[in-house]
Amino acid sequence: MTRALVHANFRPFLDGQMPEGVEPVWYENDEEFAAKLSDVEVVWPDYLIRDSADAVLAKALEGANVLQWCSVMSSGVDWLPLASFRANGIALTNGAGLHAHSVAEFALLGMLSYNKKWGQIRDSQARHEWLDEAPGTGELLDARVLVIGAGEIGQRIRTLLEAFDAQVTMARRTPQGGDLGQDEWRARLGEFDWVVLIVPSTPETVGMFGKDELAAMKKGAALVNVARGEVLDQDALLEALRSGHLGGAYLDVTNPEPLPADHPLWDCPNVEMSMHCSGLAQSSLLRRASLRFLENLRRFQAGEDLVHRVDFDRGY
Amino acid sequence: MTRALVHANFRPFLDGQMPEGVEPVWYENDEEFAAKLSDVEVVWPDYLIRDSADAVLAKALEGANVLQWCSVMSSGVDWLPLASFRANGIALTNGAGLHAHSVAEFALLGMLSYNKKWGQIRDSQARHEWLDEAPGTGELLDARVLVIGAGEIGQRIRTLLEAFDAQVTMARRTPQGGDLGQDEWRARLGEFDWVVLIVPSTPETVGMFGKDELAAMKKGAALVNVARGEVLDQDALLEALRSGHLGGAYLDVTNPEPLPADHPLWDCPNVEMSMHCSGLAQSSLLRRASLRFLENLRRFQAGEDLVHRVDFDRGY
Repeated sequence: MTRALVHANFRPFLDGQMPEGVEPVWYENDEEFAAKLSDVEVVWPDYLIRDSADAVLAKALEGANVLQWCSVMSSGVDWLPLASFRANGIALTNGAGLHAHSVAEFALLGMLSYNKKWGQIRDSQARHEWLDEAPGTGELLDARVLVIGAGEIGQRIRTLLEAFDAQVTMARRTPQGGDLGQDEWRARLGEFDWVVLIVPSTPETVGMFGKDELAAMKKGAALVNVARGEVLDQDALLEALRSGHLGGAYLDVTNPEPLPADHPLWDCPNVEMSMHCSGLAQSSLLRRASLRFLENLRRFQAGEDLVHRVDFDRGY
Repeated sequence: MTRALVHANFRPFLDGQMPEGVEPVWYENDEEFAAKLSDVEVVWPDYLIRDSADAVLAKALEGANVLQWCSVMSSGVDWLPLASFRANGIALTNGAGLHAHSVAEFALLGMLSYNKKWGQIRDSQARHEWLDEAPGTGELLDARVLVIGAGEIGQRIRTLLEAFDAQVTMARRTPQGGDLGQDEWRARLGEFDWVVLIVPSTPETVGMFGKDELAAMKKGAALVNVARGEVLDQDALLEALRSGHLGGAYLDVTNPEPLPADHPLWDCPNVEMSMHCSGLAQSSLLRRASLRFLENLRRFQAGEDLVHRVDFDRGY
């Protein structure tokens, strides 16, 4: 019998759906999770408190355990004890692609809102004031956009931007076609109206976009970060915004999260933030994540390769 | 010599570009326009005060005049004296398609903002408050959308929605393929999560969407009006919103415009408005409108058919 430790939030999507030979073990909070972890072959730790998940999991792995596979529905796996997983031979699968539609919807919403100054339009409605002129006249039509990161989310952002008739260039680790390689995009930063960050957070990408990259951007261009807060040097960002070199930014993610209430980013002009809502803002996530988990459970039971397995060398 | 009366705002895009044999006559306000209208073969009356344009033009056409062609950059021509144009044999060309990208960008911005409750996210940022949950989880992914009106703007909205993986059905005057005809869509209204209005304002479409159509929509579905305010029965809309049958609305247009400051729509929950900014919110409009005007001027001089000529029977 395979025992799978899963948060009770997924129960409506999994009850009665488990493959033969799998017994679900439900948890509702971090304490229950820690108490039950040593007896299960499979764990799905989403809904742990993010700040403690790494420690809770790592501690459990120090003792005797039978864990073989950890499944998460997040794309980023930087909140997990990757070294312990590797040392203990535990497979890790992630939710790559599950959030692609939702994160891409946020990226486009942030860009459109920035272009049209949607906040000013909302404020005007709240004051019952008609507008004789459009406050923002930026267009995605013909905009030159560099998307850095070509995973499933980056690809979806490209698809959407191209539907809006923007001119999209991708930068990726292993370039194909007209894409730019890992070290080619820096020299081209001055060409773009927008730069969109959607790389995974790995030792290679932390601090990847800093003072030099911001200075190399076209004056007045705008930045989108839907990757991870630590990919972007936030002090350099503030400086580039204050100097006026950077036109503005849309940030779904910050560093740290939650952002402290007294942080200067909150009130920085031309900055819109969405408090890392992007991946969660989808009514169909739990259902789609459960379907993927069930498919992998079937594979696990059959001894087949798991889908969306994380490569510990790459970190995604 | 052909004389063309054009607002001075277009001068940067037209100076030195006029075809041979055409002399521009510039105006800056309604008075200059009225004084110069009787001596020109071609007129481009955009930037007249909308409320008086009809009367100013109609009055001038009562007297002696040499006018042969009126060019506008708006898509809607309901603000012009169509009967006088027809009676005097004056050709009318409009800006159909020039606004397609910008209006479609607004339609998608309105839908995304509604789905994700972007206003709540903005308010939360203003209060420096992190969000632990996404306030809005609606998705365009798999959403069923009926787009009523299949002109260039409606087609662009379809293209964008399909890129977001929504399921789009079009309703149009002359249906093709899987589209619904003029009287087929009413029976199908209950199937859709969204209804998007983007028909021209004609005697046929005024009041087209009223109490019965709103009642036939799926409970909790949402409405987008990027057509004209008078296409939608606004009292019926308010009633459907107050009863909770309609989930919400995004309105770029209202009836009347400007909407009076004491109108109940301003504060109606789940209503976002953009004060008819959609068509104007584009940095490239004057340039692209000027290019179309120049092409038509060339055709006018050569005796060729004008492009985007309005059919007075259809009204668009």
